[in-house]
Amino acid sequence: MALIVQKYGGTSVGTVERIEAVAERVKKCRDEGNQIVVVVSAMSGETNRIIGLAKKIDPNPTPRELDVAMATGEQVTIALLTIALEKRGVPARSFTGPQVRILTDSAHNKARIVDIDGNRVKADLEAGRVIVVAGFQGTDQEGNITTLGRGGSDTSAVAIAAAIKAEECQIYTDVDGVYTTDPRVVPNARRMERITFEEMLEMASLGSKVLQIRAVEFAGKYNVPLRVLSSFENGPGTLITFEEEGMEQPVISGIAFQRDEAKLTIRGAPDQPGVASQILSAISDQNIEIDMIVQNIANDGTTDFTFTVHRNDYIQAITALEQIGDTLQARETIGDQKIVKISLVGVGMRSHAGIATRMFSALADEGVNIQMISTSEIKISVIIDEKYLELAVRALHDAFELESEPVVE
Amino acid sequence: MALIVQKYGGTSVGTVERIEAVAERVKKCRDEGNQIVVVVSAMSGETNRIIGLAKKIDPNPTPRELDVAMATGEQVTIALLTIALEKRGVPARSFTGPQVRILTDSAHNKARIVDIDGNRVKADLEAGRVIVVAGFQGTDQEGNITTLGRGGSDTSAVAIAAAIKAEECQIYTDVDGVYTTDPRVVPNARRMERITFEEMLEMASLGSKVLQIRAVEFAGKYNVPLRVLSSFENGPGTLITFEEEGMEQPVISGIAFQRDEAKLTIRGAPDQPGVASQILSAISDQNIEIDMIVQNIANDGTTDFTFTVHRNDYIQAITALEQIGDTLQARETIGDQKIVKISLVGVGMRSHAGIATRMFSALADEGVNIQMISTSEIKISVIIDEKYLELAVRALHDAFELESEPVVE
Repeated sequence: MALIVQKYGGTSVGTVERIEAVAERVKKCRDEGNQIVVVVSAMSGETNRIIGLAKKIDPNPTPRELDVAMATGEQVTIALLTIALEKRGVPARSFTGPQVRILTDSAHNKARIVDIDGNRVKADLEAGRVIVVAGFQGTDQEGNITTLGRGGSDTSAVAIAAAIKAEECQIYTDVDGVYTTDPRVVPNARRMERITFEEMLEMASLGSKVLQIRAVEFAGKYNVPLRVLSSFENGPGTLITFEEEGMEQPVISGIAFQRDEAKLTIRGAPDQPGVASQILSAISDQNIEIDMIVQNIANDGTTDFTFTVHRNDYIQAITALEQIGDTLQARETIGDQKIVKISLVGVGMRSHAGIATRMFSALADEGVNIQMISTSEIKISVIIDEKYLELAVRALHDAFELESEPVVE
Repeated sequence: MALIVQKYGGTSVGTVERIEAVAERVKKCRDEGNQIVVVVSAMSGETNRIIGLAKKIDPNPTPRELDVAMATGEQVTIALLTIALEKRGVPARSFTGPQVRILTDSAHNKARIVDIDGNRVKADLEAGRVIVVAGFQGTDQEGNITTLGRGGSDTSAVAIAAAIKAEECQIYTDVDGVYTTDPRVVPNARRMERITFEEMLEMASLGSKVLQIRAVEFAGKYNVPLRVLSSFENGPGTLITFEEEGMEQPVISGIAFQRDEAKLTIRGAPDQPGVASQILSAISDQNIEIDMIVQNIANDGTTDFTFTVHRNDYIQAITALEQIGDTLQARETIGDQKIVKISLVGVGMRSHAGIATRMFSALADEGVNIQMISTSEIKISVIIDEKYLELAVRALHDAFELESEPVVE
């Protein structure tokens, strides 16, 4: 008998029929002798409908009240799923975030979980009930309703799994696992059996949007094994867990990529302390998030400084950069919106040399020019012309033989 | 400065535009220097939509879970109204039933209010905020979400008014007050300036469905002045309050009527103790509500016993009555579905003789035959053929000169 947390997203509970299918799946898992806590999102479209109502009244609705309204989406789902379970003879009970006491800070619309009282559901679990909990929501110390921000249901599920010491936290979604890269780009991309938390973080933040980053961080921090699997078909999915001692990892696990990037360069800025922070704070003051940052060594007392932002922020960013360029008396300010980022991710990279070489030569063989390079311990990212995206990803997938089960080198 | 509770029903908050209109009305009342607690229902249609989802899964959904789902309707409204108030510069804060701690018993779907912690909203009221509370819902001792049953928002409003000792509880609805009778039947029916709790109870239970009976009972019990008024036009509405000492009441306040009644008679039942209860329990065992009951004096050792039920329950009731008739060896069992009940209501009736005489002669003048008569201290009800309903109500409205402001006799 295992204690399992299952989380079903908005698409998985998008209709009454799908909620019934989830109930069947939960029942099956319980019939196999497991204790189950189910965490659900709002039915797909519901949260947007509610936000739409609020924004029709005020484009900038009071954050506290927006949370009060949004939290109703998951509340409806927990009730409907519990009704579907009880119809099947499965004793069940629903809990809102405040009821299960998912305690958060007071940052409305993007609250962070502070604590969960795992004991609130223990008695019902011991009594054989399935517990159905509203994801995405909680309560602050003063009893105000809070929400965790988009995708927060994953985080709720992981936090509950940690609080009740579940054996596994299963995230049911509309894909059947984490792939070596996007199968729409590389048809023979392979579902991974397992991946480490670190790799998953790099994959997620780079565009393989299967899991919310905060949920992965949370799972890693509290050592909760996470499994991503499909709510529409059967299959083992992908287990996200710690790198096990003594077990060698494949060199490269997957290839992530990010469309919609834009790069900005300031040329001939004075090479002196404080310049980088002056440039970056000019951008972040506009609430623009900066992704990659590259600065090469100085030349003739001046330096070139390049960074990337989301393409939506490009106009605002280049305007800010031109101003700071004038202030710094830099030579010129240039930008390019037609670029993408491709990243190789793998914890095995740490212990294996030559990965970068193999990567760069695979791209060179296809005539793909590399505009920028940035590396971390388990990741190598390059910026290239957007027209080469598919070509480059396929070439790298082939070069590292990701279509086959990993052979430990 | 007065402390006022305002309650807006589903139609009054049925669209975003109407919610904005409610916000304007609340703002105006606050600008006049009042402290305000607003109680709202779900947007019209919303509760039915949610029940529909639940019943699609299970025609008899778990009552606890149905409450969890239904309570979301009001929760959306409180958030939207608060957003609309804050947009207008009116500081406001929303509270769900559980947050304001509307404590109820655990009878899901038809819970009764046990206690309200008026102090939870006091601090915000003192700080100048408008308090927006979700009607219809509460929490039981164990923290389960409960609902009060259809129309429960009126009761929530009155209970909150009692708990915070509000000067007045204003029920905004789609009519501009309580009328002497239904204006669709009598075009010159008159809006009453005031009516007593007792009269309102008789009027409400007899079909003038402006206010929920429980809310009127509650208001009477805790001495909360109630005012019914329109949320679409301005006007003083109708004040429901105690009969004031030394103030003479009009003889008749209004005329209520009930279509959709059916009468059942058992003839020649043995005139002995216990027979009446045997007959009535045969009906109430079927969960059928009995309205009027008339038994005349016995004759030759047998008695005739007549009662009325809702027309929808007629078939079930007559079947049950035939069985008990056989058991009691009564002479016969007959019924009539084509009847209506008309009632004169007025606390002044207590101190004035001759009301019944005037009523019966007004009906006789129009050739209306009276089939049954039942009286209470402040009400005279008659059962007549349904085809005379409009004729009879108009004749009585004229006979008692209800179109004019009451002249105390």
